[in-house]
Amino acid sequence: MKAIELFADKQVLITGGAGFIGSNLARRLVSFGARVTLVDSLIPLYGGNLFNIEDIRDRLVLNITDVRDPYAMAYLVRDKDYLFNLAGQTSHVDSMTDPRADLDINAAAQLSILEACREHNPAIKIVFASTRQLYGKPEYLPVDEIHPIRPVDVNGINKLAGEWYHLLYNNVHGVRACALRLTNTYGPGMRVKDARQTFLGVWLKNAIEGKPILVYGDGNQLRDFNYVDDVVEALLLAAVDAGANGHVYNLGNEEVVSLRQLAQTLVELRPGSHFEIVPFPPERKAIDIGDYYGNYDKIRTELGWRPKVALRQGLSACLAYYGDHLQKYLDDK
Amino acid sequence: MKAIELFADKQVLITGGAGFIGSNLARRLVSFGARVTLVDSLIPLYGGNLFNIEDIRDRLVLNITDVRDPYAMAYLVRDKDYLFNLAGQTSHVDSMTDPRADLDINAAAQLSILEACREHNPAIKIVFASTRQLYGKPEYLPVDEIHPIRPVDVNGINKLAGEWYHLLYNNVHGVRACALRLTNTYGPGMRVKDARQTFLGVWLKNAIEGKPILVYGDGNQLRDFNYVDDVVEALLLAAVDAGANGHVYNLGNEEVVSLRQLAQTLVELRPGSHFEIVPFPPERKAIDIGDYYGNYDKIRTELGWRPKVALRQGLSACLAYYGDHLQKYLDDK
Repeated sequence: MKAIELFADKQVLITGGAGFIGSNLARRLVSFGARVTLVDSLIPLYGGNLFNIEDIRDRLVLNITDVRDPYAMAYLVRDKDYLFNLAGQTSHVDSMTDPRADLDINAAAQLSILEACREHNPAIKIVFASTRQLYGKPEYLPVDEIHPIRPVDVNGINKLAGEWYHLLYNNVHGVRACALRLTNTYGPGMRVKDARQTFLGVWLKNAIEGKPILVYGDGNQLRDFNYVDDVVEALLLAAVDAGANGHVYNLGNEEVVSLRQLAQTLVELRPGSHFEIVPFPPERKAIDIGDYYGNYDKIRTELGWRPKVALRQGLSACLAYYGDHLQKYLDDK
Repeated sequence: MKAIELFADKQVLITGGAGFIGSNLARRLVSFGARVTLVDSLIPLYGGNLFNIEDIRDRLVLNITDVRDPYAMAYLVRDKDYLFNLAGQTSHVDSMTDPRADLDINAAAQLSILEACREHNPAIKIVFASTRQLYGKPEYLPVDEIHPIRPVDVNGINKLAGEWYHLLYNNVHGVRACALRLTNTYGPGMRVKDARQTFLGVWLKNAIEGKPILVYGDGNQLRDFNYVDDVVEALLLAAVDAGANGHVYNLGNEEVVSLRQLAQTLVELRPGSHFEIVPFPPERKAIDIGDYYGNYDKIRTELGWRPKVALRQGLSACLAYYGDHLQKYLDDK
C-alpha cells in the first residue's frame, strides 16, 4: 500500500482519537500528511488521554465532544474522506452495571453518526472498530467470521448492533463502511490504571510497580493478541480497499498463548515482577468465555494484512514505554 | 396446560396491551381470572387501539404510558408474576426513516424494563415477542433457531438486541425470560389501515373495501402465518414452562403459501375482491427477504405447541371481523 500517497491531504476523522488505538492511528496518519481531526470525550473511565497525542498535538485538530452528541457529530463528519470510528465503551463489567450508557455509546451514538453521514456526507468511507467479544464463548477454534454470534454481556450485544448498523448503511444506503473485529490489542497508549480496556493493561502496570500480576482461573485460557501498530495497519488497509465495503474481518495472531504463558513472559521481561494464579472474581466469571483465538484468513487473503510484531517484542515495547511514562496513565486526567 | 389454574389471580403485565396480540392475550387471561394490567402508548402509528379491548375494559387495568418511560415502567413491573413484553415498533420501513425511534423502543426501552425487573422484581417471568425478521434472507428453509442471524433492516438489528438482553438477563442476572420469534401473525385486532404491522392487514382492508389487493414482485414468495389465537397459546405455554427460560423459539406453520395463493384465497373468501401483481416499491425491495418459512420443531417438542387454526379458517374470521368493524380501525385513534 502506498499509504503516503493515499492519505496525503485527505480529511480524516477519528472518534476515540485520544484513546489507545486512535492516537496511534493518528500518529501514523499525520506522518502521511493527512489532515486529521480527533473526536474524544475524555471521559475519565474511558480510554482518552491527552498524553497519547502530546507529540502530535500541533499537527492535528482536537475536538473534545461526545459521540452521543448528534449535533456535534453531524457537523464533524462533513467534508471528511475517512472516518475511523473507534470510540466505544469497552468495559464488559461496566456494561453490566450501567447498561444504558453502554447502549448509548456503542449502539445509539453509532446510529446517529451513520445518519449524519447519510445526510451530510454519503461519500465518506467508514472503518468501524468492532470486537471479537460478540462471538461469545467459542464453539470452535480458531473463530472465523461465520462463527455464530452469541454475546455474553451487554457490551457484546450493543457492539454487535453498532457493527451491523454500519454494514446496513453500506448495503442499503450506500454509505461505504466495513468493520474489523479486534481481538486483544496492546501497546503504548493503552489504559493501564484498571482493566476497563484490557486486563493486560493492569498486568503491565503491576509488573512495573512490582505488584503481583493476577491470573484468573487456572491460567490455561488461550488468547491471541495484536500489537497496536499491526491494528493500525489493518485499519488503514480496510479504509483504502473498496473490496472491504460491507465486510467484517477478524484480526488475530498465529501466536496463541495461555494467560499463564503471557504472565510468565512479562515476568521474564521485567525483572522483579511476579504473577499469582487466583480464582475468578464472580462478576468476571459470569461473563468469561474460556479459550479464544481468531482465524484471520479473510483479511490476510482479501486485504493482505498479517500481524508483524511478535508478542515478546510488543510486550518489551510496552514495558519500556510504561517504564518511562506510567504516571501519565495513573493520574486523573 | 391447566391454564385457568395457572393464571387465576396471577398479576400479569402486558406491554403493547391494547395492540393486536396484546389485546387477544389479555382477553384470554381475564377469562382465566388473571389480574391483568395493560401498558400501551396509543401512538397512532403503532398497533394500540382501544376498540381492541372494549369488551374487556372493565375487567383489567389500562395504564397509558410509553415503554420508553423508565420511571413508569419501574413502577409497573413491581408485584407482577408475569410480563408479556409485546410492545414494539414493527414497521421495517419506518425503522429505516426514523432509526432512532426504533432503537429507543425496541432496544433501549427493553433494557430499562429488564433493569427495572432486576432491581424491583427479579422473580418475575418475562416472555418477549421477538420476530423472524432477524434471520434476514434465509440461507435454508425452513428456518430453525440455529439459522444465522442476519437482519436486513434497522428494525431487525434492534429487535435482536432487545431479544438478547432478555436472554442475558435470564442467564446472568437470573431474571427468568424467554423469547418467541413470531412469523406473520394475523387475526382480529390487527392493524389494517396501513402495512406498518403486516402487509396482510392492508390486504384485508382492501378486500373488504373492494380495492385491489397489491401483490409485490412475482407473487411467488413463500410465507407462513399464525392465527393470533395460536400465538396467544404459545405465549401462555412459554410463560408457565420453566424449561423455556433462556430459550428462543420459532413459531411457524406447516401450511406454507405463496403471496399469490394467499391473495387468491382472500379473493375466494370475499366475493367482489380482486388482486393485482405489481412491482416492488424500491423502499421495500431493498429490505425484501425472498421466501421465508420457519421450523417450529423446538417449541412443538419442548413446549407442546402447534398451530391449530387453518389459514382459510383464520382468514374467514378476519374478513367477518373487519367486515363488521373496519371503521374502528380506520379512524384516527
